[in-house]
Amino acid sequence: MIIKPQILKGFRDALPGFEIKRKSLIHNLEKVFESFGFVPINTPVLEYTQVLLGKGGGETDKQVYSFQDHGKRDVSMRFDLTVPFARYMAQHNTELQLPFKRYHIDKVWRGENTQKGRFREFYQCDFDIVGLDNASSDFEIVLMMYSSLQRLGIPDFHIHLSHRGLFNTLLHSIGAHEKSAEILRIVDKLSKIGRSEIQKLLEEIIKPQQVQDIITFIEAKGDFLETLEKLEQLSGGNNEFTDRLRMIFTYAEQAGIAEKLVLNPSITRGLDYYTGIVFENFLDDLPGIGSICSGGRYNDLASLYTREKLPGVGASIGLDRLLAAMSELHTEKEKPSVTDVLICCMDEENIGSYHALAQKIRKEGLKTEVYLKKKKLQRQLQYAEKQGIPYVLLLGTEEISRGTYTLKCIENREQKTYENFESLISKILSEQE
Amino acid sequence: MIIKPQILKGFRDALPGFEIKRKSLIHNLEKVFESFGFVPINTPVLEYTQVLLGKGGGETDKQVYSFQDHGKRDVSMRFDLTVPFARYMAQHNTELQLPFKRYHIDKVWRGENTQKGRFREFYQCDFDIVGLDNASSDFEIVLMMYSSLQRLGIPDFHIHLSHRGLFNTLLHSIGAHEKSAEILRIVDKLSKIGRSEIQKLLEEIIKPQQVQDIITFIEAKGDFLETLEKLEQLSGGNNEFTDRLRMIFTYAEQAGIAEKLVLNPSITRGLDYYTGIVFENFLDDLPGIGSICSGGRYNDLASLYTREKLPGVGASIGLDRLLAAMSELHTEKEKPSVTDVLICCMDEENIGSYHALAQKIRKEGLKTEVYLKKKKLQRQLQYAEKQGIPYVLLLGTEEISRGTYTLKCIENREQKTYENFESLISKILSEQE
Repeated sequence: MIIKPQILKGFRDALPGFEIKRKSLIHNLEKVFESFGFVPINTPVLEYTQVLLGKGGGETDKQVYSFQDHGKRDVSMRFDLTVPFARYMAQHNTELQLPFKRYHIDKVWRGENTQKGRFREFYQCDFDIVGLDNASSDFEIVLMMYSSLQRLGIPDFHIHLSHRGLFNTLLHSIGAHEKSAEILRIVDKLSKIGRSEIQKLLEEIIKPQQVQDIITFIEAKGDFLETLEKLEQLSGGNNEFTDRLRMIFTYAEQAGIAEKLVLNPSITRGLDYYTGIVFENFLDDLPGIGSICSGGRYNDLASLYTREKLPGVGASIGLDRLLAAMSELHTEKEKPSVTDVLICCMDEENIGSYHALAQKIRKEGLKTEVYLKKKKLQRQLQYAEKQGIPYVLLLGTEEISRGTYTLKCIENREQKTYENFESLISKILSEQE
Repeated sequence: MIIKPQILKGFRDALPGFEIKRKSLIHNLEKVFESFGFVPINTPVLEYTQVLLGKGGGETDKQVYSFQDHGKRDVSMRFDLTVPFARYMAQHNTELQLPFKRYHIDKVWRGENTQKGRFREFYQCDFDIVGLDNASSDFEIVLMMYSSLQRLGIPDFHIHLSHRGLFNTLLHSIGAHEKSAEILRIVDKLSKIGRSEIQKLLEEIIKPQQVQDIITFIEAKGDFLETLEKLEQLSGGNNEFTDRLRMIFTYAEQAGIAEKLVLNPSITRGLDYYTGIVFENFLDDLPGIGSICSGGRYNDLASLYTREKLPGVGASIGLDRLLAAMSELHTEKEKPSVTDVLICCMDEENIGSYHALAQKIRKEGLKTEVYLKKKKLQRQLQYAEKQGIPYVLLLGTEEISRGTYTLKCIENREQKTYENFESLISKILSEQE
């Protein structure tokens, strides 16, 4: 009996072309994170359900993959990388130096409704600085977002920044702070549902004048410092939150990235979790896809697991969204292969020589594939073309004994014989740029 | 209420020092695999239970993490990377070019007895060539194992090779082929339980003369070709299997790796799955840890899911074992940091300059960390020392305005001032070798 080869709804196989792209994206991000001295950690995919869900009862809980293991323990698959990180910090507290700067890129699982185009298995990419509450660490996270997008070849973006504390100060000054959680959640939807909807929703819970003050606040515009001054006026003058924002902006000016920062008071982020700066990244050329990297400052990462206060600041990159954006912005074709040179199999009797030559070329840093069986040359060239391999080497017995190398470029079908190994390699390397 | 931060038995957190080492190992292996033109794939962690367990009933099945998902589907977490790969090949058949060469390095889960020192979550690392049955592809897998260990700085190892078909030919010639599965499983234990135990177990199922013939066969020794001749004599003369082995050895000679190959007829590999060459890799200096990379040829990868025959050859690296081996062989200390240079925080007012300078140094390819808060210099130097960071930069306001750089080497505490950025960078780069 044949079992139908199929996968679960909401899950995906990655074919090589896609996986090569994803791995390259992840590799580039890791390079940036490590250039800042951030280190990787690893946590289990399965944890105690109680550890992951804590007091529980949230909307997320229903989506978590939970079950009983062989020892009748209640276990769950992680649904994000933040909760395991909080547990990790509480547990390994004494083994880690603070401030602790870590990144973590891996899969998480949520049994979400796939009709919304959501996947049940997806990657998250988080980076955080834990153990400090100052402008220097806030700015470092902003700088890492900047450097990440630069490295990925996405120069046109803006980082929209705001401060939870400042918004709460406004709410206090207009007497609406008791409704702050609901107000934050409503304001967070501005870019999705528009100003008049926001207004309507706010009017259901607070007075018209309060609504008006909030709308004036979140619509404040101008360059960073102008906006900051307006917000200071609206929220009752200079305070620690505006000082923090001003400091971050000064650092940004010194590092030459100030033009990327937008002070946008409508950014609030839905989660209660955040207490300081909050931010979202938008691509200039693809505003429609929303924020591709968001985060903020929290004052207590691991309160569920320890009494020790662990303030921090962090961000999360939406890898799937970013991959989709890169496909739209860059026109390069997806390639199912990584190979630089294919050594064709002209004669079975030379297979040993082909393998030996391939080893020699690999030592020069070129990814080299041996066609493992004799077939018509036409078939081998077609293979190279389909795989997007730029060069093939055509070596018959005579050439091998002479020590010359015939190289064919797949794109223009040009073919040339090189008199020695060195000239062959420099040709290929020179075209690699 | 505080929830105790703990993880499940058989699962592990990785602290940065360990995770940096594991990621570096994986990165090195990926580099080797890609240098051969092998490509990565990705498959879901959760699959239909029926797809993963097929007809089921094996010893593995009891260890698999299986449960019902939100849609009442029977699902399981993958317990290896081979079964999902078979399913993948059957499902994406028409989208992939044969021969298909893939690698896959990721976590798998088995609810094993942890008392044996086994983990319930661990990494597997597989690489396979599917769609060919010849000596060229057999050899390529052997060559990749060789290149992997070379790249990891483990030059002292041997690849023990044998052929299932040849062993079965012997069993036929002595009339013991009907018991071949049991005999294979017994012989596979030779290195663990020794010759006399093997003899005893074999005598329980076959005649003394047959046992003697098998012992003579599996104990054949000498250099590769001598041993091959002995085996030919013992199994009734030259045949397609000895031809295959001879061909592989010829390729190995041409590629200069013949000295690493040992023809070892006692290597059988327990699994029924294998039909051609089988091999195991042993480290000369750590024979006790067993094989760190094993595999072989199979004639039908995906028979559970498709009627199409997919022959292949592949190997699997035991990542945990390899990591343990590398720690024993190499004396380098585990470092909790990746940072090359730490910029100390001498004055809060210079924080912006520190961040700006860090960006400039990162552009030179150096991993650069900013100490994010002013503390006593002694504390900052201690931090660098504990983290294993080789250099710190000490920049006060005066130095910043002069444009000079004072660099301190943590190991020898030497300190020197550089007159410009270029001389600073070349100093650090020159020490990096």
